[in-house]
Amino acid sequence: MSMSRIRKEVDAALLAFVDRQRPGLLAISPELAPMLGALDALLAGGKRLRPAFCFWGWQAAGGREPREGVVAAAASLELLQASALIHDDVMDSSDTRRGQPSVHRRFQALARAEGWSGHAGPFGEGAAILLGDLCLAWSSEMYETSGVARDLIGPGRQVYDLMRTEVMCGQYLDLLEGVRGAGTVEAALRVVEFKSAKYTIERPLHLGATLAGGSPEVVEALRAYGRPLGIAFQLRDDVLGVFGDPAETGKPAGDDLREGKRTVLIAQTLERADAAGTAVLDRLLGDPGLTPEGVAELRAIIEGTGGLAACEEMIERYAREAADALAAAPVNGEARIALEELAVAATSRQA
Amino acid sequence: MSMSRIRKEVDAALLAFVDRQRPGLLAISPELAPMLGALDALLAGGKRLRPAFCFWGWQAAGGREPREGVVAAAASLELLQASALIHDDVMDSSDTRRGQPSVHRRFQALARAEGWSGHAGPFGEGAAILLGDLCLAWSSEMYETSGVARDLIGPGRQVYDLMRTEVMCGQYLDLLEGVRGAGTVEAALRVVEFKSAKYTIERPLHLGATLAGGSPEVVEALRAYGRPLGIAFQLRDDVLGVFGDPAETGKPAGDDLREGKRTVLIAQTLERADAAGTAVLDRLLGDPGLTPEGVAELRAIIEGTGGLAACEEMIERYAREAADALAAAPVNGEARIALEELAVAATSRQA
Repeated sequence: MSMSRIRKEVDAALLAFVDRQRPGLLAISPELAPMLGALDALLAGGKRLRPAFCFWGWQAAGGREPREGVVAAAASLELLQASALIHDDVMDSSDTRRGQPSVHRRFQALARAEGWSGHAGPFGEGAAILLGDLCLAWSSEMYETSGVARDLIGPGRQVYDLMRTEVMCGQYLDLLEGVRGAGTVEAALRVVEFKSAKYTIERPLHLGATLAGGSPEVVEALRAYGRPLGIAFQLRDDVLGVFGDPAETGKPAGDDLREGKRTVLIAQTLERADAAGTAVLDRLLGDPGLTPEGVAELRAIIEGTGGLAACEEMIERYAREAADALAAAPVNGEARIALEELAVAATSRQA
Repeated sequence: MSMSRIRKEVDAALLAFVDRQRPGLLAISPELAPMLGALDALLAGGKRLRPAFCFWGWQAAGGREPREGVVAAAASLELLQASALIHDDVMDSSDTRRGQPSVHRRFQALARAEGWSGHAGPFGEGAAILLGDLCLAWSSEMYETSGVARDLIGPGRQVYDLMRTEVMCGQYLDLLEGVRGAGTVEAALRVVEFKSAKYTIERPLHLGATLAGGSPEVVEALRAYGRPLGIAFQLRDDVLGVFGDPAETGKPAGDDLREGKRTVLIAQTLERADAAGTAVLDRLLGDPGLTPEGVAELRAIIEGTGGLAACEEMIERYAREAADALAAAPVNGEARIALEELAVAATSRQA
């Protein structure tokens, strides 16, 4: 079993689930086809990180074949993620996702192309809210129908439920930081913890290990690896959101700056900026019309103040902590290799 | 057992579930208190129609004590409904719900009251999208942890899953009618079927009867009662949305007209209106600044064309069909009385 093989099985399970839903939707109305089209397009992209951590957590905790059930349960996390992304893009008014138009933009374009008389803007946002809801509902449906043994699916569900509540609460705290603009590293780190670190890595590992019926020791060891890695992952994502290559991130350059995201990177910069730098940050961060020159100006401040270096140092520290935890974990064979590779993938400077 | 007793038990189960979540949220951050506050306020209102149909469907299909499990499973439908209402209000930009500010308006007011520097509008909408997501996640969590016996919760889940997909698809079709403005009775009725009729009555009955392990005959008999009643319920709701007393509907007078909802009532009116009437409808329907005089003008056209009478006639016809189906159903005792009373409550001219 290799990482790429599991990735293919996750993709196949996801496609099979959506294909099972397709005729039901089209029987309600053929006019639901654009909902399926938007979901297909979104699911065509993505790194399947959450399913990967879930599956390899299962494997690491001694999960036994057949693996079809856990592959489907792990793949269901990708529907949860699709829901979060679709709703996130509405909340942030993002134009693009995974290198394509975001779901609300896609539906706005549909309304305009069809020449429908009503307002395309609210229609697009409404359709995206509903498709996000559908993905959220389908994620639990896919989990429940995954075929995981009855005595394991219940304990797994407790992790799943906790993870959903955590990510939604983390997203609210993120919004709150955005509107309130407190801008401390501590506040930004708390958002990272719940919105991203636990949700992307620690809980998927926790879920996978639980679905394997893993011992408390192995579950805790995996979580101890997942916690710091999750933070490092999000900090890397924040750096890529400012300095990443659009061809790799699937987002226009500096999009996070345009959205005014209150990341740890920004908080690190604000802590170090002088009055002039702070004034520029206040003026340009979150400006929807931010120009390439403005992006360059902000990047210069983030680098010049040492905010970037401080963030890179944190990434390195957390990644090392994760590596140490994995080294000490009672995990062997393919699972150890996969978790090592995933740690690199999650914190790599390539998006 | 009376209807009011069951209503109290549903309320208690709902409150107990939210109370179990409360400490977890506040442990993530005390700043999540406004999310809980907004949910408490929303759940303080509502007629609990869906839990009632679910519970009495269970009772009618021979469900056996203890009833705690089915009461909690039924109550979980109220969290699903809370999610739908919160997201609906964002999509429609509604200011009020159940006589109070809608959730996004509540968070916008919070941002302004706290003097937060960012944009209150997107913050409010984002917070509402997230609270709706949380309610959707919690509805399935509450269902799964309801305590219904294992051999019944799985078959019930199939109904639950179908219902969620149907209501979300119905809402999309509703949006589509709004933006496209086809305006036929047939298109409006299809929206009613999925967005409202099945979701509010037929599927809750179906779910309850399934959780009782009811025979296929009793399940089908209840659905045959629920289907037409669900349509009559929504048509009544549409009439109340135009002619209802704001003190009872919890919505400002004529709010559905201001939102431009493409209801069966409007479609019936459009079919009958002359050129002058059609021009007024085109001009005023969906005007966010619609005045009381505009509301009166539209009401006069809806009555004058016979649109209202045609809609009332449909309500009567569907309600009679439901009553006939119930009369023929193999249901006795308290359940029959409750279902008769619910049919009246769901189609009454009082909101």
